[in-house]
Amino acid sequence: MYPSVTRPTLVVNEAICRENISRMAGKAKSSGVVFRPHFKTHQSLEVASWFRDYGVDRITVSSAEMAVKFARAGWDDITLAFPVNARELDLLDTLAGQIKLNLLVDSYPVSLLIAERLRSLAGLFIEIDTGYGRSGLRPDAHEEIGRIIAAINRSGNISFRGFLTHAGESYAAGSAGEIREIYERTHRQLNILKERYRGTMISIGDTPSCSLIENFGGLDEIRPGNFVYYDLMQQSLGSCSYSDIAVSIACPVSGIYPERKEILVYGGAVHLSKEYLMGNGKYFGLVVRYMDGGWTLPVPGTRVVSLSQEHGIIRTSQTFINTVRHGDLLGILPVHSCLTANLLHDHMFIV
Amino acid sequence: MYPSVTRPTLVVNEAICRENISRMAGKAKSSGVVFRPHFKTHQSLEVASWFRDYGVDRITVSSAEMAVKFARAGWDDITLAFPVNARELDLLDTLAGQIKLNLLVDSYPVSLLIAERLRSLAGLFIEIDTGYGRSGLRPDAHEEIGRIIAAINRSGNISFRGFLTHAGESYAAGSAGEIREIYERTHRQLNILKERYRGTMISIGDTPSCSLIENFGGLDEIRPGNFVYYDLMQQSLGSCSYSDIAVSIACPVSGIYPERKEILVYGGAVHLSKEYLMGNGKYFGLVVRYMDGGWTLPVPGTRVVSLSQEHGIIRTSQTFINTVRHGDLLGILPVHSCLTANLLHDHMFIV
Repeated sequence: MYPSVTRPTLVVNEAICRENISRMAGKAKSSGVVFRPHFKTHQSLEVASWFRDYGVDRITVSSAEMAVKFARAGWDDITLAFPVNARELDLLDTLAGQIKLNLLVDSYPVSLLIAERLRSLAGLFIEIDTGYGRSGLRPDAHEEIGRIIAAINRSGNISFRGFLTHAGESYAAGSAGEIREIYERTHRQLNILKERYRGTMISIGDTPSCSLIENFGGLDEIRPGNFVYYDLMQQSLGSCSYSDIAVSIACPVSGIYPERKEILVYGGAVHLSKEYLMGNGKYFGLVVRYMDGGWTLPVPGTRVVSLSQEHGIIRTSQTFINTVRHGDLLGILPVHSCLTANLLHDHMFIV
Repeated sequence: MYPSVTRPTLVVNEAICRENISRMAGKAKSSGVVFRPHFKTHQSLEVASWFRDYGVDRITVSSAEMAVKFARAGWDDITLAFPVNARELDLLDTLAGQIKLNLLVDSYPVSLLIAERLRSLAGLFIEIDTGYGRSGLRPDAHEEIGRIIAAINRSGNISFRGFLTHAGESYAAGSAGEIREIYERTHRQLNILKERYRGTMISIGDTPSCSLIENFGGLDEIRPGNFVYYDLMQQSLGSCSYSDIAVSIACPVSGIYPERKEILVYGGAVHLSKEYLMGNGKYFGLVVRYMDGGWTLPVPGTRVVSLSQEHGIIRTSQTFINTVRHGDLLGILPVHSCLTANLLHDHMFIV
């Protein structure tokens, strides 16, 4: 298969991506919430264009650089979901003059800088830490929230939009039930803020919650990103099944070691990333075979067990190793598709 | 410091790099072995050019793509230290027509493909697995070694150069003594092969051994790569001290959380990689402050404790957090400089 593929390449299955987008867009629509997908997962203009077919015209990104890239490609309503980096205020000001830009803040000092230095119109969300402990203000930080809103209102050109959270603690959940509990807690905390600060929006983002919850009633916006590709981490969380995973990394077989039941592929940490899952030891991916229009389910008992810069070592069974030849292309289902897609965005292939 | 740095950027200290190169080149020279440094670590034409000042004109790379890049920049004697990927034979043939190219093989079937399909002149090494268990033939695989050499000799245009190993097991060593033992074992195994196959070269590559050993007598070539930058992994192995680490990642401070003694920097898994070290929990980097011409030693009790795509969370002391302001630039010493440099090769800054 794919004789033109000579090096590690991200193979994107368009049909699966479209099903994933369609399902999430449909749930957002029936829940009456804005669907503002996070484009950090794919960072691809082509994949981005598929979202248009499902009514998406508002997006989320995680860096100013990504915002510039998508703005240039015609996306004109972008939320940059990373607390404003004071060193990029000039760039953000330029960007805000070109598109409808929403920024994120979680501190009064930065809100003052924004109010002083941004001359273009922009929207602003306050990030709330509903339990993840990464960034954001605590939901009861009313004094700081009040000072930020006052600073924004004085500025004249910044509009306060509301409260945004990323409940990333769902990635550490042990069960679907626990993910639902995280969703309920997030929902409750944001709704208390919405009650107190009338007329504001509340927005959530994590793929595990957005995948498991069917109705987002009571929220205003969802911003999942990973769901377009999914990956083994999401599969292990119960957010998706293997057949929902829309990407694999095609890796040429460069070594076969029957005595230790291992295969070397050209495909290492600079292609897959070093993200791993645990389960009978660490593993960095599962292995599939390509077939017309896609790939098989994971080959049983076969995993990527170690990675160096360009080398990937697959441990497998005698049965499977007997079917493999030097120069074959094996597919790797990634542990974390966002990191892999970031590494391979110049080497992508759509089926 | 560095007002022009607005996003995560690799800061390379040229003076430290030159000391690292000079020391290794000096040891190779006094040992009478060829110094063929691995350029996968930096992948930078500018850093590459510094090696010329220390007499380096032969290099190692780990992908055909890297070989093409350095060949275009005038490097005309390159060993591609990755078992030949049969899907790239046409590209390798073209390259072999342009420069002096050495390839690597660890199987008879691939040596046959090379003999059949390579029309240009090239050199070939057989990779030996002296204990790492990644790729290579076992040192006693005389039957396969013999068949490979015969296939090469029949081809007419491929010259057999000798035996090459990467003793990567030194990265898992618990002490300097253990690294020396690995070196001795590697040395012994390769010398047995050199005795048996007269007139061939033997070549080793790992940075831990090359850093700790002073005299490489009995070998023909060393190919370390990481030593040019070093990193926390090498420091923890005893291959270098903190002051030998030649790279840091400059990251803007985007959040300060005194109540949990944590700082958010713009600098995540897509900049640092997810490589970690263990020691009172996982950590992904140590923190330094920039000063004229370089940076400080690591700030005590201060580490990068978690990474998501663009977010890095630093856990620190009350004392240090009080000195940090939004928009400050903190430096991160990386766990694995090769992976970080690969991620940031478009965002590099030399001091």
